[in-house]
Amino acid sequence: MQVKERIAAFRKRMTEQGIAVAIVPTADSHASEYLADHFKVRQWLCGFTGSAGTLVVAREEAALFTDGRYFIQAQNQLAGSGVELMRMGTAGTPSLEAYVDALTQAGDTVGVDFSVISAQFAQAMRGRLEKRGVKLADTGDWFDALWTDRPPMPQQKAFLLEEGYAGRSVQSKLEAIRGEMKRQGAAVHVCNVLDDIAWTLNVRGGDVLYTPVVMSYLVVGEQDAAWFVEESKVEDALRAALCEAGVAVRGYGEITDALSRLAPGTRVLADGRKLTAALMAALAHTEVVQHENPAMRIKAHKNEVELANLRRAHVKDGLAVTHLMYWLKTRVGKEPMTERSVSDRLLALRAEQENFISPSFSTICAYRDHAAMMHYSATPETDVPLEPRDLLLIDSGGQYLEGTTDITRTFALGPVEHEQKKHFTAVLCGMLALANAKFLHGVTGIGLDILARGPMWDLGIDYRCGTGHGVGYLLSVHEGPNSFRWYKSATRSEDTVLDEGMVTTDEPGIYIEGSHGIRTENELVCRRLEENEYGQFMGFEVITCAPIDLDAVLPEEMSPRQREQLNAYHAFVRETLLPYMEDAGEREWLIHATRAIG
Amino acid sequence: MQVKERIAAFRKRMTEQGIAVAIVPTADSHASEYLADHFKVRQWLCGFTGSAGTLVVAREEAALFTDGRYFIQAQNQLAGSGVELMRMGTAGTPSLEAYVDALTQAGDTVGVDFSVISAQFAQAMRGRLEKRGVKLADTGDWFDALWTDRPPMPQQKAFLLEEGYAGRSVQSKLEAIRGEMKRQGAAVHVCNVLDDIAWTLNVRGGDVLYTPVVMSYLVVGEQDAAWFVEESKVEDALRAALCEAGVAVRGYGEITDALSRLAPGTRVLADGRKLTAALMAALAHTEVVQHENPAMRIKAHKNEVELANLRRAHVKDGLAVTHLMYWLKTRVGKEPMTERSVSDRLLALRAEQENFISPSFSTICAYRDHAAMMHYSATPETDVPLEPRDLLLIDSGGQYLEGTTDITRTFALGPVEHEQKKHFTAVLCGMLALANAKFLHGVTGIGLDILARGPMWDLGIDYRCGTGHGVGYLLSVHEGPNSFRWYKSATRSEDTVLDEGMVTTDEPGIYIEGSHGIRTENELVCRRLEENEYGQFMGFEVITCAPIDLDAVLPEEMSPRQREQLNAYHAFVRETLLPYMEDAGEREWLIHATRAIG
Repeated sequence: MQVKERIAAFRKRMTEQGIAVAIVPTADSHASEYLADHFKVRQWLCGFTGSAGTLVVAREEAALFTDGRYFIQAQNQLAGSGVELMRMGTAGTPSLEAYVDALTQAGDTVGVDFSVISAQFAQAMRGRLEKRGVKLADTGDWFDALWTDRPPMPQQKAFLLEEGYAGRSVQSKLEAIRGEMKRQGAAVHVCNVLDDIAWTLNVRGGDVLYTPVVMSYLVVGEQDAAWFVEESKVEDALRAALCEAGVAVRGYGEITDALSRLAPGTRVLADGRKLTAALMAALAHTEVVQHENPAMRIKAHKNEVELANLRRAHVKDGLAVTHLMYWLKTRVGKEPMTERSVSDRLLALRAEQENFISPSFSTICAYRDHAAMMHYSATPETDVPLEPRDLLLIDSGGQYLEGTTDITRTFALGPVEHEQKKHFTAVLCGMLALANAKFLHGVTGIGLDILARGPMWDLGIDYRCGTGHGVGYLLSVHEGPNSFRWYKSATRSEDTVLDEGMVTTDEPGIYIEGSHGIRTENELVCRRLEENEYGQFMGFEVITCAPIDLDAVLPEEMSPRQREQLNAYHAFVRETLLPYMEDAGEREWLIHATRAIG
Repeated sequence: MQVKERIAAFRKRMTEQGIAVAIVPTADSHASEYLADHFKVRQWLCGFTGSAGTLVVAREEAALFTDGRYFIQAQNQLAGSGVELMRMGTAGTPSLEAYVDALTQAGDTVGVDFSVISAQFAQAMRGRLEKRGVKLADTGDWFDALWTDRPPMPQQKAFLLEEGYAGRSVQSKLEAIRGEMKRQGAAVHVCNVLDDIAWTLNVRGGDVLYTPVVMSYLVVGEQDAAWFVEESKVEDALRAALCEAGVAVRGYGEITDALSRLAPGTRVLADGRKLTAALMAALAHTEVVQHENPAMRIKAHKNEVELANLRRAHVKDGLAVTHLMYWLKTRVGKEPMTERSVSDRLLALRAEQENFISPSFSTICAYRDHAAMMHYSATPETDVPLEPRDLLLIDSGGQYLEGTTDITRTFALGPVEHEQKKHFTAVLCGMLALANAKFLHGVTGIGLDILARGPMWDLGIDYRCGTGHGVGYLLSVHEGPNSFRWYKSATRSEDTVLDEGMVTTDEPGIYIEGSHGIRTENELVCRRLEENEYGQFMGFEVITCAPIDLDAVLPEEMSPRQREQLNAYHAFVRETLLPYMEDAGEREWLIHATRAIG
């Protein structure tokens, strides 16, 4: 079935249900960043495979709203579909809301599946439409009937993350959540966010690519708790462990009914920016206390067991990347390699490591000008052979029982233009300046971003994205609320104070279209330093452990202090990795690759 | 009359008027930072002379609430007065509100002069008290009767600031204000803030020490405007000039009546954080649109005429400071000098400059450990002779027709301990890093503060105040909304985007109690740099022009880039000041004092 036919069939359903305009977002029922295939209905309907975009279908028109990352891809994939591309953020493009307004009039109904949009989105949209006499209706999920070969809901087994990895019991986590519920005056908390749930229950699974979570809901009461999950995913041992922690297992589909049965007037803590409009509707008879999910902020502060594990994960991950670097630097030009074959080799090297589970996101392996595309992913059509010259950027990460990693290195495969080395050195200096920051407790990511970004701004260049994001523990590679960014946005939480145990990436870069891309990324753990009469000082521990390619560095562009910082980092890499290296050639190479520069 | 007698007389008035608790703030009717003597009623009543503090008088008790700057001074000055010192921000000290609560019960009345508190303060206090059945009453001004030798209201003449200094006509400024009124849907704007009024009307005066403003109110309508001011201050030429700009002059005391006569329901733009409770009460029949005074934000963007004048003012001011530095460095130990005599000499050097009007604040001239007190002001009791050794900190500024200046230099009067030189160098590196920042438009002071503060934090030291404040044009030396600070506070506006023409000080420091204090302060003008595909880049132009004492610098503690920045600044100082120096010895000295260091 072609896109045109799919949309025609979809319009038929719209007409049957009296829907003038349908909105099809890219979303699941859990506010997830990565979707299970089952939820990729927008992709199925319009053919656009990007990770972000909202489709609007009216009786005659249809349009896809997406952002700058996807303009070219969407234009190609929508060609001939009859779906217009709306380039968000460019002049002359209407907002989604204005577009829907233009297509509707009093008496019309706009339809959307309330089980995949947030309560907040539904409320804002309804408020806007009702002013004009237009209704917003919950259509439910239409696609089971339309999409005949729709992938089923994921069915991976859940597993218990032992306390030796999680560092904290489920009981203790539930107590912390109940503490926040009490402060907010709530007797019940409903959570639909998968990483918050996985963290709370010390469970992991395989329902979503790259993020080892379990499709489920969690309801926490003052004494009890219930996990709503496809029961076939939960083996007896896990069920028993949860039971012992006071958590009952109930069917995934029972959540709506369970919420409806809460006593009228119960105070329920829920995050309307995450909870679906459908579940919020099931809470209509209760009193909802709008508040972020308590687990979100607690889990950002990694505990000492998690941190000790993360250090182990980063040694393994650094070894895999360093093995790859050694092979690249010594074999390029001597044996065939391409962006994709190098990605595969890196995955194989990670897979050799104990307790490796999966990549933590889709590897970016980008040669020369490909690296200027920040989210490039090599396909058979774009894949290119690597030559013994110029820069190769590899951004990758792994999921281990010991935690989640995210590392970027840019390698000189041979001679590199002087300007590119200058850019490489500026990126390196920014990365080092942030990693070596010392600051009083109370500073937010906004207060430190200039340290990483300044060397690029000095060159009149910007990398047009944040400097870093929080990282989960065997969870999402993008985890809030901590980050390094230079400006505030309405939807994020840049004003989060950097606090003990938070893990954040430090990844400045330079991207010159048609030429080259450079990024160097380490992960930083925020730690307490001395406390004195001025307050509590904080700093960072670097846990990422792999050489930074000195062949692309211009030492004369660095201050003595910056060189010292680089040399100290390389000494840490050398001392950490050398004991795990057996090959004499590789050992010798590592010693040279991590030499002090003067 | 002693403080005890004054308070007894005050209590008698309280009893007569049925007031259980009276609140006496440190404030005038114009939300001013510096008060005319007429308004120093709190000081008269309790004897404490500090610039901040609120007195609460009950039937039996009395207490002064003040902040950490004044704990020692207040303790001394309140001794034997029966007034308890409340150390704000220290453990166990109640808030002013809690203290008032504890002294009152249902049916009581709390009294305060509504003509010197903001509408916002009155509203918050009333809301709190009324919940407990306590009334808040406007007592009016009691002190004319009690304070027999009370200084009269200031009576200085107002004068017109010519467009050659102001750079913009009154008509054009009123149009800009009316533009903002229109955006806010207001037909009238009432302003009681003296620097906003002076800026709008291109008038200056001498009613407040250090800040050349005129006690007055301004009401702007859609077509007309009225300036409420003691008419004897306004000579015919000024009156005629204002008349031509569509501004009528009316009596200072007529403001309340004029507001009462506005048509019911008129939409009036007013800032309740600044406008007095008394005037807000006179607007009760109108519809008040709460909004910051439009002049506040417009005047922060200095125009090109103001900037050209400011550069001239800073040459004159820098010459005065440099003359003083030459004399200090060559004469200390050879002729007697003290903190106070040096202050006087600096004032005399400034007074030699054309168009000098007054200091812009009380000079801080602090030797050795005195400089560790950030707001030290030498008195006959604390004054000390200067010796040819150790550090002398001088923070001073001037008001010129060409603008307001604020400069701090710390001088080595002879040998200085190595650690103090290390501190001096750290302060210098921070000051230079901020001054040389390059950043995309959209950055706020919070995003850059780390550049100045980082070198101190690296040493485990903090200077416990902002890095810089906005500066007015022949107005207040502390002017919002721009600033450099590292944390947000409820009452300030640190999230102001740094924008073209804003003038902000850059003044990191180190203060070691009982030992030494160091501060180096330049003023920075925010300027547009190149605009390219990444956006509009911004940077700073340094306008302060006086040598930084190289005798206290450790060049080996600076990076090559920091040394280059210092050398570039000193080249600017040398080239700018040398043409104005006639004394051959001083010229030779300046050339040496501004030499490049390697």
